[in-house]
Amino acid sequence: MATTDPDFPTPEYLARLERTRAEMEKRGLDLLVCVDPSNMHWLTGYDGWSFYVHQAVILGMEGEPVWWGRAMDALGAMRTVFMSDEAIAGYDDSYVQNPEKHPMSILGQLIEGRFPNARRIGVELDNYYYSAAAHAALQEALPNCRFFDQVGLVNWQRTCKSPEEMVYIRRAARIVEAMHQRIVEVAEPGMPKNVLVAEIFKQGIAGADGEWGDYPAIMPMAPSGMDATAPHLTWDGTPLTSGVPTFFEIAGVHRRYHAPQARTLFLGEVPDKYLAAEEAVLEATEVALRMARPGNRAEDVANAFNMTLNARGFMKEGRVGYAVGLSYPPDWGERTISFRPGDQAILQPGMVFHFMPALWLDDGGIEITEPILITEDGVECLCSTPAKLFVK
Amino acid sequence: MATTDPDFPTPEYLARLERTRAEMEKRGLDLLVCVDPSNMHWLTGYDGWSFYVHQAVILGMEGEPVWWGRAMDALGAMRTVFMSDEAIAGYDDSYVQNPEKHPMSILGQLIEGRFPNARRIGVELDNYYYSAAAHAALQEALPNCRFFDQVGLVNWQRTCKSPEEMVYIRRAARIVEAMHQRIVEVAEPGMPKNVLVAEIFKQGIAGADGEWGDYPAIMPMAPSGMDATAPHLTWDGTPLTSGVPTFFEIAGVHRRYHAPQARTLFLGEVPDKYLAAEEAVLEATEVALRMARPGNRAEDVANAFNMTLNARGFMKEGRVGYAVGLSYPPDWGERTISFRPGDQAILQPGMVFHFMPALWLDDGGIEITEPILITEDGVECLCSTPAKLFVK
Repeated sequence: MATTDPDFPTPEYLARLERTRAEMEKRGLDLLVCVDPSNMHWLTGYDGWSFYVHQAVILGMEGEPVWWGRAMDALGAMRTVFMSDEAIAGYDDSYVQNPEKHPMSILGQLIEGRFPNARRIGVELDNYYYSAAAHAALQEALPNCRFFDQVGLVNWQRTCKSPEEMVYIRRAARIVEAMHQRIVEVAEPGMPKNVLVAEIFKQGIAGADGEWGDYPAIMPMAPSGMDATAPHLTWDGTPLTSGVPTFFEIAGVHRRYHAPQARTLFLGEVPDKYLAAEEAVLEATEVALRMARPGNRAEDVANAFNMTLNARGFMKEGRVGYAVGLSYPPDWGERTISFRPGDQAILQPGMVFHFMPALWLDDGGIEITEPILITEDGVECLCSTPAKLFVK
Repeated sequence: MATTDPDFPTPEYLARLERTRAEMEKRGLDLLVCVDPSNMHWLTGYDGWSFYVHQAVILGMEGEPVWWGRAMDALGAMRTVFMSDEAIAGYDDSYVQNPEKHPMSILGQLIEGRFPNARRIGVELDNYYYSAAAHAALQEALPNCRFFDQVGLVNWQRTCKSPEEMVYIRRAARIVEAMHQRIVEVAEPGMPKNVLVAEIFKQGIAGADGEWGDYPAIMPMAPSGMDATAPHLTWDGTPLTSGVPTFFEIAGVHRRYHAPQARTLFLGEVPDKYLAAEEAVLEATEVALRMARPGNRAEDVANAFNMTLNARGFMKEGRVGYAVGLSYPPDWGERTISFRPGDQAILQPGMVFHFMPALWLDDGGIEITEPILITEDGVECLCSTPAKLFVK
């Protein structure tokens, strides 16, 4: 039972379990083994940087979910989960990163003992924290069970945020606004990139409006010039120079809830190509966000964006956005809905996305992106950061 | 071919490939598929926060290794790897997080095309970035190949650091010293924990001695009081109070190379129990580090530590240290050698460890830990941070 300040009241967790079990029943599952740290947190409140060893939340069709992990992390579970201490099970440290024996064999025994009638088990087959070896060891330990890939089952229950979750996401939005403001305040030619990133990080963790900042599930991406033709480079000690764009793809985070937002900074005069790109992106964004409303499909947003952008002579590769919320490294996306052609998911009130109309050009990148909430009758941009190139 | 400032000269990468291929030959492998971002970086120089999608380095017995990943990240590969652009292959964005089709099927085609004679393929079966679904998709795409678990093959080649790698680790050591110094400078009762962590982070990324700081593979762990009975809680906005310990397990990082080090801070008077624990840990550390020398086994270090500690009336659960170096989230450990009973690895000059004699007591924790280098005839502590409880 949580002895630290819990993130949510117990009834919210119980409602989440009920929603998840309804879906499990629909799919004919007896048991779900969740290893995604975000799903573990969402179901139980568990928090801790312990996902580098094998751990899971086990959810049967009744009773408390079971937190299972390394024995030393069971103490962290006792301090963060809503369940009783009986629902927490730790395994011996000799199973940690030991090629001779796999902790999933222990989990098999636990499942046999606590859920003797479970036969149809859902697992998150394509999750970072469910390795091929983990799956093999669990299958071997439970030879009478059948396993089913349910990688998105819990993630999909998370798409519509509760009012309590929106409180945290709105705090995260305040934080990312403050981070972007800090960039504009301190950036100048000659400043080493890492010194600027240090300022961004300080602001992000110091927080905003008196609310504390948590660590982001993706580190700041802050490439300049040619490095910004590649989307996922982080930073080094190279000084900022005039005449090239630097984009900052960062997130404010509060209690693991993310508000990601990117802006692009130009020191000095902006080349015409980037002014044209800015105009095209902003126009296409406006058109696309009109399509981001309940009842429309995810692909409608992408198609509206791409059509407008292409008419302006620009092309975008990749998704124009994705669902976000509670998250742990290495990804702040929820890995459910993407704004891309073919994604037929129907938008609903309470869904939160990172609308992500980044362009990577031949000599740099431009990112002006927004965390957005689908409302009862449209869309809300969660940040008030000015939607434009930052020029200084 | 790297267009950014490469981390190492090409001959260093070629030597790494040679060492790795010698081990592959010994094990009868034709091909190695590396998905561990640290192994990918060590073999090719590739850097980027792109490991949240499927990617790999493919190493055959001759020719260049192949970088394979998402098409948009191929641009980041072109800027960071030592190989020619022909050795870089990107896959279409529609394969990203799409339950309908798995990128590993594309990798199967690539292997068939570029390595038509490969039959015995090594994979990192228990790596975070090699999911059960990835393994299944790759096996299905290559029905004529046999797969072998080689999860530690490259990691073991990384245990002894080159002189060039030690340059980076020593810079990281300077950075973590500065971070601990900053903690002592600014911490005071009433300061919200996140505000202190913001200062630590700023220092860590600003760096030290003019060398830039990179992001750590594990976020700062900074629990106080009862939260510090659990090893892996991060932080929140609770103010620091007098009379309880707070430990800071953090790392200085330069170009992905880590120097992790923990210290424990007491504001106010230190209870006798913690003074006794400090004395026991420091004495046991001294005894243990005398065993950390070439020719001894990893378990010798752990046994020496535990015997001395137990004689003082304290017990430690878990490992007393582990190999470190180049790393990406979620773990800064190399996942090879651990200081624990039963680990028979023989210590060699050039190995770097996080010596980690943390104690978690019934009402808090104490961590006084060191990054260490095995030298030609003994051990070197890489940091000069005073080895004691910090009291303020």
